[in-house]
Amino acid sequence: MYRLISKHGRARRGEFKTVHGTIQTPVFMNVGTAAAIKGALDTFDLKDIGCQVELSNTYHLHLRPGDEVIRDMGGLHKFMNWDRPILTDSGGFQVFSLAKLRNIKEEGVYFSSHIDGHKIFMGPEESMRIQSNLASTIAMAFDECVENPCERQYAQDSADMTVRWLKRCKDELARLNSLDNTINKNQMLFGINQGSTYRDIRIEHMKQIVDLDLNGYAIGGLAVGESTEDMYNIIEAVEPYMPEDKPRYLMGVGTPINIIEAVYRGVDFFDCVMPSRNARHGTIFTSEGILNIRNAKYERDDRPVDPNCGCHTCRNFSRAYFRHLFKANEMLAMRLAVIHNLYFYNNLMAEIRSALDNGKFSEYRQSKLGVLDRHI
Amino acid sequence: MYRLISKHGRARRGEFKTVHGTIQTPVFMNVGTAAAIKGALDTFDLKDIGCQVELSNTYHLHLRPGDEVIRDMGGLHKFMNWDRPILTDSGGFQVFSLAKLRNIKEEGVYFSSHIDGHKIFMGPEESMRIQSNLASTIAMAFDECVENPCERQYAQDSADMTVRWLKRCKDELARLNSLDNTINKNQMLFGINQGSTYRDIRIEHMKQIVDLDLNGYAIGGLAVGESTEDMYNIIEAVEPYMPEDKPRYLMGVGTPINIIEAVYRGVDFFDCVMPSRNARHGTIFTSEGILNIRNAKYERDDRPVDPNCGCHTCRNFSRAYFRHLFKANEMLAMRLAVIHNLYFYNNLMAEIRSALDNGKFSEYRQSKLGVLDRHI
Repeated sequence: MYRLISKHGRARRGEFKTVHGTIQTPVFMNVGTAAAIKGALDTFDLKDIGCQVELSNTYHLHLRPGDEVIRDMGGLHKFMNWDRPILTDSGGFQVFSLAKLRNIKEEGVYFSSHIDGHKIFMGPEESMRIQSNLASTIAMAFDECVENPCERQYAQDSADMTVRWLKRCKDELARLNSLDNTINKNQMLFGINQGSTYRDIRIEHMKQIVDLDLNGYAIGGLAVGESTEDMYNIIEAVEPYMPEDKPRYLMGVGTPINIIEAVYRGVDFFDCVMPSRNARHGTIFTSEGILNIRNAKYERDDRPVDPNCGCHTCRNFSRAYFRHLFKANEMLAMRLAVIHNLYFYNNLMAEIRSALDNGKFSEYRQSKLGVLDRHI
Repeated sequence: MYRLISKHGRARRGEFKTVHGTIQTPVFMNVGTAAAIKGALDTFDLKDIGCQVELSNTYHLHLRPGDEVIRDMGGLHKFMNWDRPILTDSGGFQVFSLAKLRNIKEEGVYFSSHIDGHKIFMGPEESMRIQSNLASTIAMAFDECVENPCERQYAQDSADMTVRWLKRCKDELARLNSLDNTINKNQMLFGINQGSTYRDIRIEHMKQIVDLDLNGYAIGGLAVGESTEDMYNIIEAVEPYMPEDKPRYLMGVGTPINIIEAVYRGVDFFDCVMPSRNARHGTIFTSEGILNIRNAKYERDDRPVDPNCGCHTCRNFSRAYFRHLFKANEMLAMRLAVIHNLYFYNNLMAEIRSALDNGKFSEYRQSKLGVLDRHI
């Protein structure tokens, strides 16, 4: 499964074997919420931009087209035409961020669909059954994701319930993996650490979920209202309690600098909608900093958006053309921007891995601070 | 320029040499109004779907980003990164269909931008200057496009003015082509036949514009309110007056069957927004007829949208996935649909050319009538 190749301070270079191929870590997972990348990218585009792992959302696919449809079509890999690893989010985060009229009970969550308002129940068993139908490579545990700031008592109670839910997830997935008609009988389970910004609750929770001996561990409930400093502090607090021989995944983070800083603190897996969401608004990540391609100064600029980038957009189109597409509200603008920003993120991870391989991660990190996050 | 390779009844197989390469005819031109294909396709996608000629709109590009910007960037070919022929519409049709507060005078048309309402004047000379800045392969004459039905006297007066405008277009383009700093000094000019549904006005007008010895001739002002029968009648009426050694272009037409019927009546060039517009609503052209991919019956259909099609969409994705993308409002749905429909149109033209080459066009036409236009 996870093999630690080398370590540089807390930063780790590794690889993670799955039935759908080996993932080189640190890795950024590209978000295809409803089994498609926003910005009109398909799975062939994902390969072109160097994507190793696609991430889809249990909540969205359960609602539309329905996980049973995807099961009947042979699982998510066949449905999307993607043969590399897929991680499915548990639906927990979306239930708490998108769904309406939530009622959280010990058994799970009662809520209304954000699409048509119909009533749905989802608990640990339901989340596992849906993810088993989707047949992703890695299933995520069903958890409660609290917003920050959060009252201490609520954070404690929620963390406790998340441990109970996690045990139910583990049992249910073991049962599903043993069934004859299950598509991916090797589906893996990652647990999710919670506890808001309380270091002691986080650490205690991490110890409890590590005892369950899962395939990997995520840090959840960050980048949901707390400061960047708090986020780094929590990672530093819980990381020593995460097993060395399992991958660590920081959910929903973040900017290029956030990612470099989290790798520095021992994280292996990342996902974030930021590169594709920002792209759709014309905000472009480059090796020189962040630019807004809608800016008038690019009207007659015949350079690529990032002269140091090897993506389809930068190899073939000028800033002037790219800006025009945004100003004219052409759908192509978003596609070219998403291609670039996702390539940028995947390439960033390749650079990080290369720096780790060459023992130069510290220098690499220093060279990027104050550069990748400046607005140019 | 135009070489007639073979003739089958009135149907013509030919080729048209341009400075940007040779066009095999009959040909369908793919519409990229604002220098981009709707549905997030770029010029690499255009090559993949077999596009020979891209068509852009003078009116749109004049407003945004401005034809002078495109001139400064080296012309439309360099701006879009496209090395094959480009035809630019004159702006006439858009001025009459999109712009507000039109005031038509002998010198040209005063109107307000549909984007921000600012006042613009466009006459024959302005249209030629804009198209010269765009540096397209083929410029279209600036004409008045009347709606059908149209009063006889109005149609006659308009056709007469269009001849006077055409002479001004020819003179102005000759002047522009002779200037040192003109990007494409070999820019060609096609005249446009008008006259509403009045056969005698159409024929008289055609004779007059043929006298001007242009690079090609278009039939305009059809598919704007008249019946299909009227459209075919007009083509049959004017075709005998069109020179054999020049290409004939039926503007803005049409369905696959319309195209086959117009080829049968002697037409060489086509363009239409129908394949891409219909695609964006889920209406898909196939070798078996027209289907709506949103239909519930495709929910678990693992066949490609058209099993006989070789496009990217049909080679790689199922109807079930394709339908899901539409139902989930994913931008990718539109892209895959536009790729398919445009491939279908370009492939239709390749089949027509092949049938002409093999002396089987009559059989080909018979085999498609009642098939390509049925709803399945």
